[in-house]
Amino acid sequence: MSHGVHSKKQGDFVMANKTVTAPKGFFAAGVSCGIKQSGKRDMGLLVCPTGARAAAVFTTNKITSAAVTVSRRHIKSTKIFAVVVNSGNANACTGGKGVNDAIKMCAETARNLKVTNHRSPITNNQVLVASTGIIGHKLPMKKVISGISDAAKSLSDSEKAGLYFAHSIMTTDTRCKQSFAQVIISGRKVSIAGTVKGAGMIGPNMATTLSFITTDAVINKGLLTEAFKEAIGNSLNKLTVDGHQSTNDTAVILASGLAGNYPIVSRCPRYKKFTAVLAGLCDDLARQMALDAEGATRMFKVVVNGAATAAEAAKAARAVADYPLVKCAIHGGDPNWGRIICAVGSSGVRLNQQKLSCKIGNITVFKNGRPKRFDAKKASSIILRPEHTVTVDLGAGNCSSFCYGCDLSAGYVKINADYHT
Amino acid sequence: MSHGVHSKKQGDFVMANKTVTAPKGFFAAGVSCGIKQSGKRDMGLLVCPTGARAAAVFTTNKITSAAVTVSRRHIKSTKIFAVVVNSGNANACTGGKGVNDAIKMCAETARNLKVTNHRSPITNNQVLVASTGIIGHKLPMKKVISGISDAAKSLSDSEKAGLYFAHSIMTTDTRCKQSFAQVIISGRKVSIAGTVKGAGMIGPNMATTLSFITTDAVINKGLLTEAFKEAIGNSLNKLTVDGHQSTNDTAVILASGLAGNYPIVSRCPRYKKFTAVLAGLCDDLARQMALDAEGATRMFKVVVNGAATAAEAAKAARAVADYPLVKCAIHGGDPNWGRIICAVGSSGVRLNQQKLSCKIGNITVFKNGRPKRFDAKKASSIILRPEHTVTVDLGAGNCSSFCYGCDLSAGYVKINADYHT
Repeated sequence: MSHGVHSKKQGDFVMANKTVTAPKGFFAAGVSCGIKQSGKRDMGLLVCPTGARAAAVFTTNKITSAAVTVSRRHIKSTKIFAVVVNSGNANACTGGKGVNDAIKMCAETARNLKVTNHRSPITNNQVLVASTGIIGHKLPMKKVISGISDAAKSLSDSEKAGLYFAHSIMTTDTRCKQSFAQVIISGRKVSIAGTVKGAGMIGPNMATTLSFITTDAVINKGLLTEAFKEAIGNSLNKLTVDGHQSTNDTAVILASGLAGNYPIVSRCPRYKKFTAVLAGLCDDLARQMALDAEGATRMFKVVVNGAATAAEAAKAARAVADYPLVKCAIHGGDPNWGRIICAVGSSGVRLNQQKLSCKIGNITVFKNGRPKRFDAKKASSIILRPEHTVTVDLGAGNCSSFCYGCDLSAGYVKINADYHT
Repeated sequence: MSHGVHSKKQGDFVMANKTVTAPKGFFAAGVSCGIKQSGKRDMGLLVCPTGARAAAVFTTNKITSAAVTVSRRHIKSTKIFAVVVNSGNANACTGGKGVNDAIKMCAETARNLKVTNHRSPITNNQVLVASTGIIGHKLPMKKVISGISDAAKSLSDSEKAGLYFAHSIMTTDTRCKQSFAQVIISGRKVSIAGTVKGAGMIGPNMATTLSFITTDAVINKGLLTEAFKEAIGNSLNKLTVDGHQSTNDTAVILASGLAGNYPIVSRCPRYKKFTAVLAGLCDDLARQMALDAEGATRMFKVVVNGAATAAEAAKAARAVADYPLVKCAIHGGDPNWGRIICAVGSSGVRLNQQKLSCKIGNITVFKNGRPKRFDAKKASSIILRPEHTVTVDLGAGNCSSFCYGCDLSAGYVKINADYHT
C-alpha cells in the first residue's frame, strides 16, 4: 500500500495523475454551463465506458433532493456507466418537477455518451445524478442540457479532465479536495482516487457533501458496497461541522475492474488490503473536508474509550465535536476540559463519574472524576495545531469510537448570517 | 390573574415589590464574599422562616455538580426553610470534597439562621444549595462561610433584598431577570415571583441555569411538584441556547402557604388557576433568558404542528432551534426556509414530504412540499424583530410542540473563544 505517485501511461514520461481519472477506465469532464452566476465550472461528468460496479451511500435526512431520490433507484443497476453532477443548484424541495429534471439529466447523459461514442446504448438507470447548491429553486434545464452536451464532448482521461471535474462539484469550498492511493493486489497495481466537496451542511443555503471515488480494482458489487459503507462510516460519517446531514449528501464509488487483479469475491486477504487502502483514502478526504469547513481554522478528533457500547461511544464523541462551546474553546486555543466533560454528560450515555477521565493531546487534564494540574500553555499549543486529539474515557465499558470536528469561528457566523437568499 | 403591581404592606405608601420577597413569608439577601474577583455579589440567601413546601427540577446531565447532588437529597424533606446560592464557582467536577463543601454550605446556613433567630432549630437537609460559575475549582470555603454569615445578618423582606439576591446569582448575565404575577384564588390574593440566571450552558466555563420561584399559595407538595414540573417543561426546558444542559441547572419553587387561600389539594379549578399563572411566569422568565443569551440579539419560537407524537414535535422544534445555520440566518435577517426544512428532515421524525409546510411569522414560504413565492423583504423584517415565530407542519399527525431559540452571532464566538481558563 502506498499513497505514492501514479503514472497512467507506463513508459511515457508524463505528469503524475492523482485525480479521479488516474485509475484505469475513467474519463471525466468539468465545464461551465451558467448555473453559477460566477461563471465557474458547474457541470461535471464522470464516465466508465466499460461499465463499473458501483456502490453509494446517501443522506439519512428524511427530506432528500431529487437527485438522491433518482440515484437511489439507479444504483440498483448491475453496472453504472456515468455520473452527472451539477453545482450551484441543489434541486431539493422542488417537488415532482425536480425529480423529472433529475431523470432528464440521466437521460441526456446517456444520449450524449451514445453520440460521442463513449458507450452505446446505455439506459437512463445506468447513470447516477448528484446536485449541490441552493435549495428550493428549479434547475435551469436549458443550461443543464447544453452543459451535459459540452461536458460529454470534452471527456478525457487526462489529469486536467479529472481536475476540472473536481472543480465542477465545488460550491463554497475554498480548495479542491482530492486523494489518491495505490496498492498491489495479486501482483497487480490497483489504484483508488477520490474527490469530495463540502463538509456537512456547510454552505450559505448550499447543501451537500458529495464524494466520488474511482478504482480499477476487480471486485464484486456486494463486497464493494460493504467496503464502501464501512469506509464512509468511519470517515465522512464521523465528521461533523454543524451537526446535520444535508438533503443532498451522496458518496459514490465506481470500480472499472481493469486493474487485472485476481477478482475480490470473498472476505479474503485481497479484500482486506483493498478495504484498508479505501478506508485510508476516505479518512484523508474527511480530514480535508474538516479543514476546509466554513470559517474553520483547525480540526480535532474526539476519541471516546471505555463506553458501554460502540454506539454510545460514537454518540458521546459526536456530542463533544458538535458542542459550540467546545468548538469555540478550540478556536481560542483554550484547554477548557469542563466543556468537554459537560458535553459528555449531556449526551446521555452511561458513564462512571468516579472513573471519568480526559486528555488533550497526551496531557491528562481530568482523571478519575477529578481535575489534574497540567501545563495550560503546553495544552493550548497542542490545541492550536491544525489537528489534535481529545480523548475521553467514560469508565463504563470497553467500547470505543471517534468523531472529527472543527472549530467555530466568527467567520462561520459571518458567512452564514451575511448571505441572503 | 394579573401581572400587576403588588404592594406588600397594604395601606402603606411603598414602592411596589416584584422581587422574590414579594410573596408573603420570604426574606432574602445578596452579598459579596470574594468568590468573584470583580467584587460583585456572589452569595445569596432565600429564607422562608415558617418553612415552605418545595419542589425542584434538576439538570438531566449525567455529570452533576456537588450542589445538585446534595439538593436532590434535601428536596425530599417535608419543609424547606432556606436556599443558599453562590455564584463564581460551580463546585462541579470537584469530587467528594465538593459534596462535603455543599453540605457544609447547608449546615452553615442552618446554623446562622438559628443564631439570627429566623428559625430554630432547622436541620441541614431542610436547606437547598445551588452553585454557578467555573467548573473544576474547589470552593474557597473560608470566604463562603463568612459570606453565609453576612447574608444571614442582612436578611430582609424588602424589595432591595430581593434585588440583591437576584444579583448575587448572576454570572455572565448582562441584566437581572425577574418576573412577578398575582392571581385571586378563593378570594385571596396569591403572589408568585421568580428570578433566573443564565440561558443554557452559556458562560465562558460558567455552567448553570438557576431559577428560584417564591409563592405564598397554600398548596400541597405533590401538586406543587406537578405544577412546577409542567411549567418548567413548557418554558425553561423548551429553551435552547447551545443545545446542552449544564452540570448545575436547578429550578426551585418555595410555597410559604401564607396567602390564606383555600388549600389546593386536588386538580380543582383553584389548581388550574395557579398553574396557569405559574406557567405564564416561567414562560416570561425563559424569554428573558433567551434574549440575554450570550451574543444573542433576538429570539425566536419554533412551533411544530402535524407531528405523529408530541415527542417528535418537540424533537423537530429543538432541531430547528439548535441548528447553527438557522441561528445564523436569523442573526442576518435572512428568510432562509431551506435551512429550516433541512433541520426538520435531519431530526429523524416522521413527516410527509408532500404535505410539509413552513411559515415565517404569518408568511407561508413552503407549502405541501413546494416553495411559495413570498415577499422576502417583509419576511426579513419579521425575523429582525426581537421575537418571531417559525411554524412547521410535518403533515404526519395531529401533535404539536415548540422550542425557544436565539440567534447565533459573532459575539457568541468572541465571548467563548477569547475567554481563557
